Amino acid sequence: MQNSERPFIFITNDDGIQAKGIHVLIEEMSKIGDVMVIAPNTGRSGMAHAITFSSPVRLHKHKNENGLMVYDMTGTPVDCVKMALDKFFDRKNPDLLVSGINHGSNASICSIYSGTVAAAREGAINGIPSIAFSSLDFSPDADFDAFRPYIQTIAHHVIEQGLQRNVFLNVNFPCHDTANIQGIQVCRQTKGIWIEEFDKRTDPHNQDYFWLTGHFENYEPEARDSDEWLLKQNYITAVPLQVETTDLNSIQSLQTLNTNSIIHHSTIQYNAKN
Amino acid sequence: MQNSERPFIFITNDDGIQAKGIHVLIEEMSKIGDVMVIAPNTGRSGMAHAITFSSPVRLHKHKNENGLMVYDMTGTPVDCVKMALDKFFDRKNPDLLVSGINHGSNASICSIYSGTVAAAREGAINGIPSIAFSSLDFSPDADFDAFRPYIQTIAHHVIEQGLQRNVFLNVNFPCHDTANIQGIQVCRQTKGIWIEEFDKRTDPHNQDYFWLTGHFENYEPEARDSDEWLLKQNYITAVPLQVETTDLNSIQSLQTLNTNSIIHHSTIQYNAKN
Repeated sequence: MQNSERPFIFITNDDGIQAKGIHVLIEEMSKIGDVMVIAPNTGRSGMAHAITFSSPVRLHKHKNENGLMVYDMTGTPVDCVKMALDKFFDRKNPDLLVSGINHGSNASICSIYSGTVAAAREGAINGIPSIAFSSLDFSPDADFDAFRPYIQTIAHHVIEQGLQRNVFLNVNFPCHDTANIQGIQVCRQTKGIWIEEFDKRTDPHNQDYFWLTGHFENYEPEARDSDEWLLKQNYITAVPLQVETTDLNSIQSLQTLNTNSIIHHSTIQYNAKN
Repeated sequence: MQNSERPFIFITNDDGIQAKGIHVLIEEMSKIGDVMVIAPNTGRSGMAHAITFSSPVRLHKHKNENGLMVYDMTGTPVDCVKMALDKFFDRKNPDLLVSGINHGSNASICSIYSGTVAAAREGAINGIPSIAFSSLDFSPDADFDAFRPYIQTIAHHVIEQGLQRNVFLNVNFPCHDTANIQGIQVCRQTKGIWIEEFDKRTDPHNQDYFWLTGHFENYEPEARDSDEWLLKQNYITAVPLQVETTDLNSIQSLQTLNTNSIIHHSTIQYNAKN
């Protein structure tokens, strides 16, 4: 399937096979190795780590020539990774998985909602060195050319040095002055929250419906080691994210919940809330 | 909206408003406080932390009487939490969020794919003490009665003691001998993987389609402090999960990726893979 002298690289995204960002990754990864693509057949942004098992999925081949194999699929980004693992990798993992380039930021808490990031997480779960790439420019015709050499740098680094087991990289590109990018900074995810607002409208049949909108609230706008701050300084940020999420500290503090018997609560009284 | 002398509890799930599990939670939480429910209008299992912003959502009121307010929604479990935050909580968070009871295990790595768990994660992100409840019995008519007193114990504990900021509980109930449950154990998530297989079929129009199936592989079947092992011993498991996933150790080991200049790779040679 692939030329054994070159790295084998798997590519997916969540904006769909037609998005500009994934084609930049295909071009850049084809300089490094043999490439396989399975991407959603349409935009699946905000799908996080969703999988499709209540309905079937379909797979459609685009091309298989000159070390480039391209498919699209009706499922989620994580479905695309799982399909590749089951049907194409033949128990030999690729040397690298890249997801994106997402049209829109996946910095800070956005990483939780992102299908682009989830595809890289699924790669890491399966032992594949994985990187999610996103640009703060969400425009469909965003110009990603300035990021190409950095994509090369990061991809080469991960192929050569690897990543810790169950850790993957969440890379974001700044968008305001791409001619003067300051470099790459490995950093932590900013603490913040996405505050949603549902925009209520009424359809022609007099029924209400809602559009999800919202804004990001940065809890630490001055934190110089956080991705949001570094992106504002025109750095490319690379945040190592882990799959494992057990909070070991809380296991200790919650020991009082351990029980070998049933506790009855019928007599507990609650006071008025303040 | 709610009686101010009783706790205010928000309930959702991913199996949909018609599922048996959520009605057990509604009954049990109504013993403790005033209850608001927004649940998906149909099953949305495996939706993880997905949100809906590319299409509108609709909200439908079922009832609002005697301290119980029930809605369903066309969105994902996380959408349900976000809708409640925006339209119903009026900047006063509930005292508790519970999600479930999921019909099916969300132990180990399943927590990453689960909409039930994601709803609790979204609660924690927003500062609400949150618990996901799941049963290993995925049958639609599963008998959850044996779990009721334990649900009371855990809910009371979390209301009274709280949880660490950005931490929530992922609770799973065993299913094989519910008359002899051994108690509750706070523990860590088992290291393991869900290995997917796509079952290929051909439709009447001679086109291929795929159903996602698979099996769980436990990397540490003898780990006595892990949820899978404890569930096999007939314990109820409560795993504290954290929202934050930056791997701080990797920030240090990846310092060589930091750069203030562009590196050119045109001369890098790869050797044959073994």
